[in-house]
Amino acid sequence: MRLAIALGRRGLGQVWPNPAVGCVLVRDGRILARGWTGPGGRPHAEAAALARCDDARGATAYVSLEPCAHHGRTPPCSDALVRAGVARVVTALTDPDPRVSGRGHARLRAAGIEVVEGVEAELAHAANAGFLLRLTAGRPFLTLKLALTLDGRIATASGESRWITGPESRRAVHALRARHDAVLVGAGTARADDPDLTVRDLGVTHQPVRVVASRNLELDPESRLGRSAGEVPVWLLHAPGLTPSEGWAATGARLIDCPTGQDALDPRAMMATLAREGLTRVLCEGGGALAASLIGAGLVDELVIFAAGKMIGAEGRAGLGPLGLTSLSDAPGFELTHVQQIGPDLCQTWRRR
Amino acid sequence: MRLAIALGRRGLGQVWPNPAVGCVLVRDGRILARGWTGPGGRPHAEAAALARCDDARGATAYVSLEPCAHHGRTPPCSDALVRAGVARVVTALTDPDPRVSGRGHARLRAAGIEVVEGVEAELAHAANAGFLLRLTAGRPFLTLKLALTLDGRIATASGESRWITGPESRRAVHALRARHDAVLVGAGTARADDPDLTVRDLGVTHQPVRVVASRNLELDPESRLGRSAGEVPVWLLHAPGLTPSEGWAATGARLIDCPTGQDALDPRAMMATLAREGLTRVLCEGGGALAASLIGAGLVDELVIFAAGKMIGAEGRAGLGPLGLTSLSDAPGFELTHVQQIGPDLCQTWRRR
Ligand SMILES: NC(=O)c1ccc[n+]([C@@H]2O[C@H](COP(=O)([O-])OP(=O)(O)OC[C@H]3O[C@@H](n4cnc5c(N)ncnc54)[C@H](OP(=O)(O)O)[C@@H]3O)[C@@H](O)[C@H]2O)c1
Ligand SMILES: NC(=O)c1ccc[n+]([C@@H]2O[C@H](COP(=O)([O-])OP(=O)(O)OC[C@H]3O[C@@H](n4cnc5c(N)ncnc54)[C@H](OP(=O)(O)O)[C@@H]3O)[C@@H](O)[C@H]2O)c1
Repeated sequence: MRLAIALGRRGLGQVWPNPAVGCVLVRDGRILARGWTGPGGRPHAEAAALARCDDARGATAYVSLEPCAHHGRTPPCSDALVRAGVARVVTALTDPDPRVSGRGHARLRAAGIEVVEGVEAELAHAANAGFLLRLTAGRPFLTLKLALTLDGRIATASGESRWITGPESRRAVHALRARHDAVLVGAGTARADDPDLTVRDLGVTHQPVRVVASRNLELDPESRLGRSAGEVPVWLLHAPGLTPSEGWAATGARLIDCPTGQDALDPRAMMATLAREGLTRVLCEGGGALAASLIGAGLVDELVIFAAGKMIGAEGRAGLGPLGLTSLSDAPGFELTHVQQIGPDLCQTWRRR
Repeated sequence: MRLAIALGRRGLGQVWPNPAVGCVLVRDGRILARGWTGPGGRPHAEAAALARCDDARGATAYVSLEPCAHHGRTPPCSDALVRAGVARVVTALTDPDPRVSGRGHARLRAAGIEVVEGVEAELAHAANAGFLLRLTAGRPFLTLKLALTLDGRIATASGESRWITGPESRRAVHALRARHDAVLVGAGTARADDPDLTVRDLGVTHQPVRVVASRNLELDPESRLGRSAGEVPVWLLHAPGLTPSEGWAATGARLIDCPTGQDALDPRAMMATLAREGLTRVLCEGGGALAASLIGAGLVDELVIFAAGKMIGAEGRAGLGPLGLTSLSDAPGFELTHVQQIGPDLCQTWRRR
């Protein structure tokens, strides 16, 4: 099952709005075939594994999520497992999708297959947190990446920020992008940095959607994002009732209405909108204002900090904007899950407490 | 030799202005005795080891620093080793003290003892960096401790800072104090926090000197520091030519003149003054203004950051004050030497690049 879950992880960032599932077929203690959800969500993991196996009769199928039971773009995987003659199916999670939920397991049992549920459920839950959150809470899993000096700065007073972290960390950020469905930045960052936000130099062909949060759409359609929107998707989240400028309409970028709060897009509404559009895993790369808005609303599930061994001092620009706290006990809390030295930098992963 | 160096480390914080030396006596592959510099600098490591050994004839003495050759408060250790009849002396470092430098080794050789120098020199150098810096550069080894949130804050906007880090980290800070000759804070911290700055709850009896940098001596003699100055030393570094208030004169605190820079005590002069007074290892515990002054002057040798999994936001108080950088390439740089989870916090040690 751990192998199945690990295989499933290969699909993260590429399979939305589908779950990233893995499947391992085993007979007599030998692995017959392995499979995982393909880019775009097809084939499903079970179909991929069965396709690589001439004879699965009597085998056990380890699947990280309940096999589907409904006819979608492909025939149901539970039926395929029955047809292939597997003797036993071991799963980690019940699919919360109402079209499946329990029916996949029932179908297998009705066909006389032994079904074992809930194996390594916690690990599988963590691997598919985005898919599950989207279905159960109506929001994607949100990772916030911050590249900071030891004193929490992202730029000097004059705005110089290239480069705070080393090339190894910047490469790790590209790998992080590749494991997310979308990369999100605030309009301030889009204007100041004219970023590209693609995955480069990793041999990865699949690209995340690039999302900019911009109430007023005061963004240049001639920016890198605008010019490349035809090849790699760009979504602009903006306040309702705005008429997009001609320039943007021609780029191929999608313009998506999003409810506003007091003076910016409402962070919860932003996440709900992205979930509705199918996103299960979103990586926010700043800037400080947007990051603070998301942290303040309790929406950041995971925090990835690349800390560079430098000090900029108090005049430097803060990596996180104002949170409006009145008491230290209200400070959003995180617990450490992973630390790793990456080149000269210290990469820390913290998850919401 | 590694054992000798490790034994020597036991004396750190307790032996100033002396070096913290370790000695191991070995014969036929067996350890006969171990010794290290005692509190206050006496006995020397070699004398301590010889005192625990009935018969050291023919033994090899591993000593982390060249044995002394001058008559100080005790007879020279090189003579003691000769008298004890050791056959061989292995050392890591030559003593830079002009009263010794090379003469200890020469005296041993003159007595027919085989001498091997420079074994594990780098490790011994690191362990005695404070002693060596004081003699060669006229300043102590300076450690800066910062307890910060993930966004580099030490308090909320209203000044609430108890507690950013957990009890385990606060305990680790006490252990850090115990390994330093003195703890240094700025007048702002002394006024705001009324700190005690002693080592508590660790079974340690030796206390570091408590130093406050305060140009104008606007400090309350009725503070915790003032009231306890009779038991544990308090040194106040102040601008030259100040007449100390009656209150302070009565506390037993030492008042020490220190040259000023533009509008504060000059950081280099501060370190030179502390070295002149015999300190070899100083731990600065803030606040942000003093820390920035020391970092900016390139005086911080080691940075110990206790990062708590919390976010305070940009209105919070910065852990490091202004550095006045004009370019990112001027940002003081540090390299990671150690990371450790301490309770819920992440303790990172960085050393000056
Ligand atoms: N070193 C790094 O890792 C790094 C990473 C990213 C950014 N940066 C730096 O950060 C700076 C930009 O940061 P920033 O804080 O000024 O801007 P930002 O957070 O990127 O963008 C803020 C803007 O986003 C829009 N927005 C929409 N909804 C929002 C919400 N809920 N909360 C906050 N903003 C929302 C608003 O613009 P509208 O009024 O148009 O809606 C707002 O002004 C740049 O200098 C960039 O170089 C550095
Ligand atoms: N969470 C933590 O770990 C932690 C640790 C320490 C402090 N703090 C907080 O930090 C705050 C105090 O920090 P702060 O930045 O205001 O004050 P600070 O750095 O503690 O002290 C600054 C003062 O020290 C004196 N000084 C003398 N020489 C100096 C020099 N070369 N550079 C800078 N200052 C020099 C000056 O006062 P004179 O004019 O009197 O000379 C100056 O105003 C307090 O709120 C405290 O609670 C938190």
